Amino acid sequence: MLFEKVKIDEKEYYRVSKDELSDFVVSIFVKLGVPKHDAEIVAENLIMADLMGVESHGVQRLKRYVDGIKAGAVKVNPDIKVIVDRPSMALLDGDEALGQVVAHRAMRMAISKAKGEGNGIAVVGVKNSNHYGIAGYYALMAAREDIIGMSMTTSRPLVAHTGSVEKFIGTNPIALAAPVEGEEPFLLDMATSVVPSGKIEVYRRKNKKIPDGWAIDSRTGEITNDPNLALSSEGAILPLGGLGELLGGHKGYGLAVMVDILSGVLMGAVWSKHVGGTSDKHSDVGHFFMAIDPDVFVGREEFKKSMKKMLQELRDAKKHPQFDRIWTHGEKGFLTAATRNKIGVPIYKKVFAEMNEIAKELGVEELKPIDRS
Amino acid sequence: MLFEKVKIDEKEYYRVSKDELSDFVVSIFVKLGVPKHDAEIVAENLIMADLMGVESHGVQRLKRYVDGIKAGAVKVNPDIKVIVDRPSMALLDGDEALGQVVAHRAMRMAISKAKGEGNGIAVVGVKNSNHYGIAGYYALMAAREDIIGMSMTTSRPLVAHTGSVEKFIGTNPIALAAPVEGEEPFLLDMATSVVPSGKIEVYRRKNKKIPDGWAIDSRTGEITNDPNLALSSEGAILPLGGLGELLGGHKGYGLAVMVDILSGVLMGAVWSKHVGGTSDKHSDVGHFFMAIDPDVFVGREEFKKSMKKMLQELRDAKKHPQFDRIWTHGEKGFLTAATRNKIGVPIYKKVFAEMNEIAKELGVEELKPIDRS
Repeated sequence: MLFEKVKIDEKEYYRVSKDELSDFVVSIFVKLGVPKHDAEIVAENLIMADLMGVESHGVQRLKRYVDGIKAGAVKVNPDIKVIVDRPSMALLDGDEALGQVVAHRAMRMAISKAKGEGNGIAVVGVKNSNHYGIAGYYALMAAREDIIGMSMTTSRPLVAHTGSVEKFIGTNPIALAAPVEGEEPFLLDMATSVVPSGKIEVYRRKNKKIPDGWAIDSRTGEITNDPNLALSSEGAILPLGGLGELLGGHKGYGLAVMVDILSGVLMGAVWSKHVGGTSDKHSDVGHFFMAIDPDVFVGREEFKKSMKKMLQELRDAKKHPQFDRIWTHGEKGFLTAATRNKIGVPIYKKVFAEMNEIAKELGVEELKPIDRS
Repeated sequence: MLFEKVKIDEKEYYRVSKDELSDFVVSIFVKLGVPKHDAEIVAENLIMADLMGVESHGVQRLKRYVDGIKAGAVKVNPDIKVIVDRPSMALLDGDEALGQVVAHRAMRMAISKAKGEGNGIAVVGVKNSNHYGIAGYYALMAAREDIIGMSMTTSRPLVAHTGSVEKFIGTNPIALAAPVEGEEPFLLDMATSVVPSGKIEVYRRKNKKIPDGWAIDSRTGEITNDPNLALSSEGAILPLGGLGELLGGHKGYGLAVMVDILSGVLMGAVWSKHVGGTSDKHSDVGHFFMAIDPDVFVGREEFKKSMKKMLQELRDAKKHPQFDRIWTHGEKGFLTAATRNKIGVPIYKKVFAEMNEIAKELGVEELKPIDRS
């Protein structure tokens, strides 16, 4: 069965083979001086987003990454330092590395500490980092090793917290992945805002109004349906739960602050409005990674069996008349990835052209679409 | 300044001195065979809820607790076992204790492990427990010792997850507390549903319609404004983010499952629809506690200083025209507690009568309201 989480208009996209796309992205980063192993991590992270239907965090970010490296804001050969290292925790200074490179290393440390030292749990933090891509990527690294993974990151200010009108806090994502017997892991990967900015960008591109409840006009505090305004300095995205407290907007706000505390303040990185999002300055993004080995709690096999049972029960619950299927988290993404591994990763034509311009400039072989004639 | 988070109608309430209320609740539990130290923990937890304006988790639960003990579903002298004990984690079997008793012990262990063993972090889980009261109580225990505390618990099914119409998952709260230089801790304590059931109970009591977006009619899937229906077996509360996916209902659903995974599945307790909420059967509630000592990360003083700065910045952001103050989490509760310590804890007259009936039956001295004539 072919399934894609996000319905795309094929006229607007090229399809590219996943492996060719990967080779292409790796080549670009290597040309810019990134060690091959690091380039492969970044490519895997970006392409996982495209495979799973999270276009906003996929290869469309390539230009921003390239610009960041060119501007010297992102270091290709960073001196990543382990500042603290204890049996169940560590703290890393990312030295302005590509976020994925230091984040991957931090999550590997968390996994190895949780599994190896016999403690069962580990937290590893990072400061002085950059955009780390899709949060679920790191959580999933743990689930692929049969343990629980969590990942959070600070992010640049886009959201007006309850009572405010300005872009002040980040969309600060929370991701949790857990292994499941006989199937793909459970994978929750969510912005703590109503929507991530990428979803609004899609509406902007299509010249469509955004639904009520996603964003406000910062000048009046009123709900706006204009994606341009929402993304401009005169608008702001709302926290999960929406405007005010009636439907729990203060909860989305609280979760975003929780992420700022755990991945920003605790790690010695900055928070909310101080997080840099432009390529011309030091971002000081902070990350929080946690790994928990169920073996020291209920036991790994028992855990996976219960996960399987729980997810099946959730899917089998009494259905809402307007839904023909109850999903559990990660299912849509993994089905989309299976489909895109088969028929190719869709790349928006404008993004495709932008990527090939970068290639031309760097002398890298251009990307070719899959011939679908 | 007198401030109360929840405006109450004084005609419907008695005010009771906090100390007298505490002595009263302790006496009731002691009469039922609960050791005095344990009774004091339960009383402190319930009364913290009343002090901070979370009536639903306060002494109005006393009758349910008493009934649970009488029915033998809650043990007054449980044999709480430490099943696993490692430097950074532990797992406890609550043996059907009062939730507060085993939860307090678990959080104390987490704090002591995080601070004492030099690891900086600890997770302690509990299975075979009961309702543990307000989640923030445990998180706050850590913040009072200058470290970060987190607390989550499974809870009985009240919420219809995205795509379903039935009461299937719990309101599964997440609490995080963190120390702040020179002021009360940051304290996030939130149900992962749009509202906790207690808020709907208040509307029911007042015969008021509930707002759109809080609950559905399980028979049709449509939004309901009837608090009776919402709380009956033919209705269900919505997850944070509301009905469907448009405003992020799948995120509230995902957070609730995250809580079920970390405090239920991981600990060997049950989850979602299996969590017992009645006093006549074994509940098998599961809890998750985490403590993190900032000393091994950014440093305790630096952490508290940054917290102070961050919270002040949030409060000083550009205000929405409809708000005259931007709150940070915990502020309203602490102000309410200060007020109620001064003028007394409000107890709904019907609850007050119910409490004194219990007292009469057990031969405990009856509670007296503060004379306000």
